[in-house]
Amino acid sequence: MIARTPEPPYLAVIFSSQRTEGDAGYAAMSERMVELACRQPGFLGVESVRDAEGFGITVSYWRDEASIAAWKAHAEHTVAQRLGRERWYGAFRLRVCRVERESGLGDLP
Amino acid sequence: MIARTPEPPYLAVIFSSQRTEGDAGYAAMSERMVELACRQPGFLGVESVRDAEGFGITVSYWRDEASIAAWKAHAEHTVAQRLGRERWYGAFRLRVCRVERESGLGDLP
Repeated sequence: MIARTPEPPYLAVIFSSQRTEGDAGYAAMSERMVELACRQPGFLGVESVRDAEGFGITVSYWRDEASIAAWKAHAEHTVAQRLGRERWYGAFRLRVCRVERESGLGDLP
Repeated sequence: MIARTPEPPYLAVIFSSQRTEGDAGYAAMSERMVELACRQPGFLGVESVRDAEGFGITVSYWRDEASIAAWKAHAEHTVAQRLGRERWYGAFRLRVCRVERESGLGDLP
């Protein structure tokens, strides 16, 4: 579940969100978006966790701004973004960051 | 649970971790570390979530590198870091990032 990312620098998108009640198509779309994101040019990895109260953090890692912009503009993803604002999230924050250094412990898959 | 952070730029520390089995003092220390971090100079906020399988992401936000370095060197925190490596985490990655922009939806506390 921990992403194996390359040597910094690269970019991270931290998406922190509070889900609304009920599924309303969320689980299927969420799974589809991860599957799709993984196939985009410049995608480096993703880490995602949500607790029983519906608070979640998803961090996706990208090679550069161009790859983030392309994913943001992807047709299926723009539909998901709209439904996210309308239905699935009570609140969210999206932060785009430049990863400057990394350290760790343990083997990654 | 979503942090109310200032206008970028500021720094984010993304800590992604897999817990080992059992508590072994983790819950109390984790609570203490959040309480202590919140009182450090330059602390801007924290978001944290862990799922039932023990995978977690904690993102803490900081004003500058000096505040991150001071927190890393804090006496109680260095003990927690050692126990984390020895007992509590099977694997972790810590990524230090510069937040460049932020967007969102919904009111924050």
